[in-house]
Amino acid sequence: MPTYTPPTKDMQFLLHDVLKVAEADIPGYDELDRAFTGAVLEEAGKLSAEVLAPLNPVGDRQGCTLENGVVRTPEGFKDAFDQVRAGGWTALDCDPEYGGQGLPYLVSTAVGEMFSSANMAFNMYQGLTHGAYNTIHAHGSEEQKRTYLPRMVTCEWGGTMNLTEPHCGTDLGLIRTKAEPQDDGTYRITGQKIWISAGEHDMVDNIIHLVLAKLPDAPEGTKGISLFIVPKFLVNADGSLGDRNALSCGGLEDKMGIHGNATCVMNYDGATGYLVGEPHKGMRAMFTMMNEARLGVGLQGYAQAEVAYQNALGFALERLQGRDVTGPKAPEKPADPIIVHPDVRRNLMDQKAFVEGARAFTFWGARMIDAGHRAGDAEAEQMISLLTPVIKGFLTDKGFETTVLAQQTLGGSGFTREWGLEQFVRDARITMIYEGTNGIQSLDLVGRKLGQDGGKAIMAFFDMIKAYIKENSGADEVFDQQFLDPLKAASKDLQAAGTYFMQHGMKAPENALAGSYDFMHLFGHVCLGLMWARMADAARTNLAAGAGDAAFHEAKLATGRYYMARHLPMTATHLARIQSGAGPVMALAPDQFAAGAA
Amino acid sequence: MPTYTPPTKDMQFLLHDVLKVAEADIPGYDELDRAFTGAVLEEAGKLSAEVLAPLNPVGDRQGCTLENGVVRTPEGFKDAFDQVRAGGWTALDCDPEYGGQGLPYLVSTAVGEMFSSANMAFNMYQGLTHGAYNTIHAHGSEEQKRTYLPRMVTCEWGGTMNLTEPHCGTDLGLIRTKAEPQDDGTYRITGQKIWISAGEHDMVDNIIHLVLAKLPDAPEGTKGISLFIVPKFLVNADGSLGDRNALSCGGLEDKMGIHGNATCVMNYDGATGYLVGEPHKGMRAMFTMMNEARLGVGLQGYAQAEVAYQNALGFALERLQGRDVTGPKAPEKPADPIIVHPDVRRNLMDQKAFVEGARAFTFWGARMIDAGHRAGDAEAEQMISLLTPVIKGFLTDKGFETTVLAQQTLGGSGFTREWGLEQFVRDARITMIYEGTNGIQSLDLVGRKLGQDGGKAIMAFFDMIKAYIKENSGADEVFDQQFLDPLKAASKDLQAAGTYFMQHGMKAPENALAGSYDFMHLFGHVCLGLMWARMADAARTNLAAGAGDAAFHEAKLATGRYYMARHLPMTATHLARIQSGAGPVMALAPDQFAAGAA
Repeated sequence: MPTYTPPTKDMQFLLHDVLKVAEADIPGYDELDRAFTGAVLEEAGKLSAEVLAPLNPVGDRQGCTLENGVVRTPEGFKDAFDQVRAGGWTALDCDPEYGGQGLPYLVSTAVGEMFSSANMAFNMYQGLTHGAYNTIHAHGSEEQKRTYLPRMVTCEWGGTMNLTEPHCGTDLGLIRTKAEPQDDGTYRITGQKIWISAGEHDMVDNIIHLVLAKLPDAPEGTKGISLFIVPKFLVNADGSLGDRNALSCGGLEDKMGIHGNATCVMNYDGATGYLVGEPHKGMRAMFTMMNEARLGVGLQGYAQAEVAYQNALGFALERLQGRDVTGPKAPEKPADPIIVHPDVRRNLMDQKAFVEGARAFTFWGARMIDAGHRAGDAEAEQMISLLTPVIKGFLTDKGFETTVLAQQTLGGSGFTREWGLEQFVRDARITMIYEGTNGIQSLDLVGRKLGQDGGKAIMAFFDMIKAYIKENSGADEVFDQQFLDPLKAASKDLQAAGTYFMQHGMKAPENALAGSYDFMHLFGHVCLGLMWARMADAARTNLAAGAGDAAFHEAKLATGRYYMARHLPMTATHLARIQSGAGPVMALAPDQFAAGAA
Repeated sequence: MPTYTPPTKDMQFLLHDVLKVAEADIPGYDELDRAFTGAVLEEAGKLSAEVLAPLNPVGDRQGCTLENGVVRTPEGFKDAFDQVRAGGWTALDCDPEYGGQGLPYLVSTAVGEMFSSANMAFNMYQGLTHGAYNTIHAHGSEEQKRTYLPRMVTCEWGGTMNLTEPHCGTDLGLIRTKAEPQDDGTYRITGQKIWISAGEHDMVDNIIHLVLAKLPDAPEGTKGISLFIVPKFLVNADGSLGDRNALSCGGLEDKMGIHGNATCVMNYDGATGYLVGEPHKGMRAMFTMMNEARLGVGLQGYAQAEVAYQNALGFALERLQGRDVTGPKAPEKPADPIIVHPDVRRNLMDQKAFVEGARAFTFWGARMIDAGHRAGDAEAEQMISLLTPVIKGFLTDKGFETTVLAQQTLGGSGFTREWGLEQFVRDARITMIYEGTNGIQSLDLVGRKLGQDGGKAIMAFFDMIKAYIKENSGADEVFDQQFLDPLKAASKDLQAAGTYFMQHGMKAPENALAGSYDFMHLFGHVCLGLMWARMADAARTNLAAGAGDAAFHEAKLATGRYYMARHLPMTATHLARIQSGAGPVMALAPDQFAAGAA
């Protein structure tokens, strides 16, 4: 069975040595000293390793079952959920006005990584509730907030997001679910929604569904979508549960992974709903919360990679096969551990370099969200808006790839269920799809974010990279050569790609869109390159000062050098693909794609 | 449910327009005219699409079961196996002396692709039998051949390969299974073997196990391994079945994919075995047959990609979401089919360009095997020996990646079992692992094949590329620019990588081994680049002559241009990784890998 060890030391290094949170001018960050975050992470880590991780294979094997409208979660899930609730973990970054602890989003991000590594399917129940909480918090009326939020903060009640219908996912303008206004100010909601994570289950007393639907007078397309609260049980004026609403789970999806999470078909048969915000402004309300939700999915991607890496490493240190090419390393044993072999190292280094870079990128993103929300920092808000599709798309693509690398470390054992690696692969796979497929992320990045406000955000990004390189170069030739030079080259490739889009995308947008996916990956590499430069800088500073664990800091530097030498060269290939334009991509007519068939 | 359409037209194009089989100076190839291969492929395609493909999801869901030592295959498998047998498909390229049809290996490769696309888990039963047939054919005594081969050719009897034990897979020198000589010239075989595909099942009357074991006086390591025939039922002198042998299936592996194939733990409890070939020469016997077996696994990798691509394409042509950025393409419908979107095209083109290139590479490899075996062409033998790890490693890595791309085309539907794409992903995953992990393939390539005979094979490869470019350039400027120039650049990168290994690998072999995986991929890109140049050349020749289906040939050219423009630039990144040497890869001590943990 796989194990999980919380990466507390690496998180502390990021929070305090790289992001220097306690010094940041963001309300609430002054409390985040090393002892405080250390205590939070230790407790969260314990719960993750001891309670959540052992349930991960159980959830995968048992899955959820639907019988007479009731969805049962796997054995042990409810007990574990009660423990998560009792520890106050669901309330970490929620508004104190509704019972939350008011901690920065960054703290809940670190905790969320642990929970997600330990048991992704399980952690989604609280994740979805948190997303619904955020939406009501931002767009609900005072009464709605008072009615629903306190019990969503504690996860006594769950929450869901109902967007997709059988005939439409990405293109929500096509939805058919109807909302008919009633005399009492409520709405009758009728329609079918699919792929509703945590849509029905047995761990909460009530489920607050957020449902996109169309009013009778709705304009066509996405401009005619409204958002409704549709609770499973109506809530009486005194807060007690009232009648069962006219909604039900019509089926569970049989999926490749995340079996422990109930993915429901939800039927609304004239259910009572309450309008959230203004009519026809439902999409805007949904999208306000998208940054956090998408960052959360990027996090899931690398969180699976982290736990997969840990187990691959454990195997590589134990499994004896063959001898080190430079001479036996364990002559007393029949063979050396496979970690001696250069290609096994290459594989492990690829995993490690990605995971640590991805964690830094995500924490940095979470810090920007805090700066935006808590300190009103408009530039941070703009920057995280630009980077969100990169975090979601790049980290989940690479996160999945990394779980596959980790599975490969185990050879045949990686293919068996017993070792658990194959579950990480299957679970990680969904992160590339939900919350907007990664293709949609790249479209959001290139089609919307790049050009917003005349390209202000991307220019600010380039200015930041330039300023970083300028400020940090010249003091240490080796650092410049190993970190700053590759970063400069990669960033130049990103700029060249942007220039290509400007020159060729204006007259024919396909030239930009055909390169959008490569652009997202090119961008991701530059961001991880920047993160590795910053981490390496912090590590060498600590080493010079004799502060902290020298072996840890040396490993950090070496892993960073690996990333710069072995991952960053990829930017040149992405640029070449982008610069080949739309021609090769769009050359075939749709009916020519199948031309090789009989 | 997924569907399968046999890619007959593309296969015919490869066989006759690119490889020009009927003109080849290889015994048996003169029969392979267009009508003959067309008839064979049509029949094989029909069986694949109508019988095998519908059983693929059945096999995945039901899996195999073990009860009282009996393994039951999924419903319908036995009937289908009887049909495959009745059609003579198991005997295609087998020796006529033992009841085979004596057709070239190339023909059975094309048929094998179809069977494997349609139902990989099912086709493995015959594939393993064929591997065991090959081994006995090459190394068995006359009596052994007469006893076992005729019924293995018809698949009345199955065959298996027993290498792995719980504590050793790659490093077979560590095996513990014992073979004790008996007075009657037989051996008592005792030990446990794991991951034995088709080790026990209900579709055949007898199973002929080939088992690696050690004689009492065996030297240490791989030089002390002998090969034995250990039948499930002993065979009487008259060919009838005798006593049940002392061997049994002790368990079935619970795996990520290929559920329809029984992966067995095999226990040998003093079973009667017969030595194949000389004592202590078992590894050599196993490895003789490795080229074909590994080429067969490379084929499985792209065969899954082919069927996944077909289903992704079908979805992209049907699913309506959003509008073409240049204006509606289906204004009468609520939205355009998603194939109009550039990023969906990019995704589909990546799939198509890989699959068709991979098919060409594999067919070319099969033709070399025929040239070696049938025409005694030593140079072809040497070349295919060099290319085998590339075919196996590169085509299965990219094949798996391509199934993931195809799954992505379907968005959320790709993650559900109902659409079948996720099964292709899970099934394809094993191809990167078995028959030697892809890391082992890269080691075989760089550690053994490159240097063999003073590097004769790799030099012959470069000479061939140079000659090809020289012969074909100058006549058509556009072709030169779109195909030959990128091929030349990619081949230059491959040569630079080889030079790097020579200069730095001599003093420190880690410098070569740390780059072996990238070298395998770099090599694969060059081979597919060569294949695309050859296919494009054949397509433009046909177009100029007005021969065949113009739309097909135009699609071929356009897909080739895509490969050259969008895939080949990857060689530069692989070269950069290789040239960074072993330093970054080997920098960490084993205990530093986990330094980020608590």
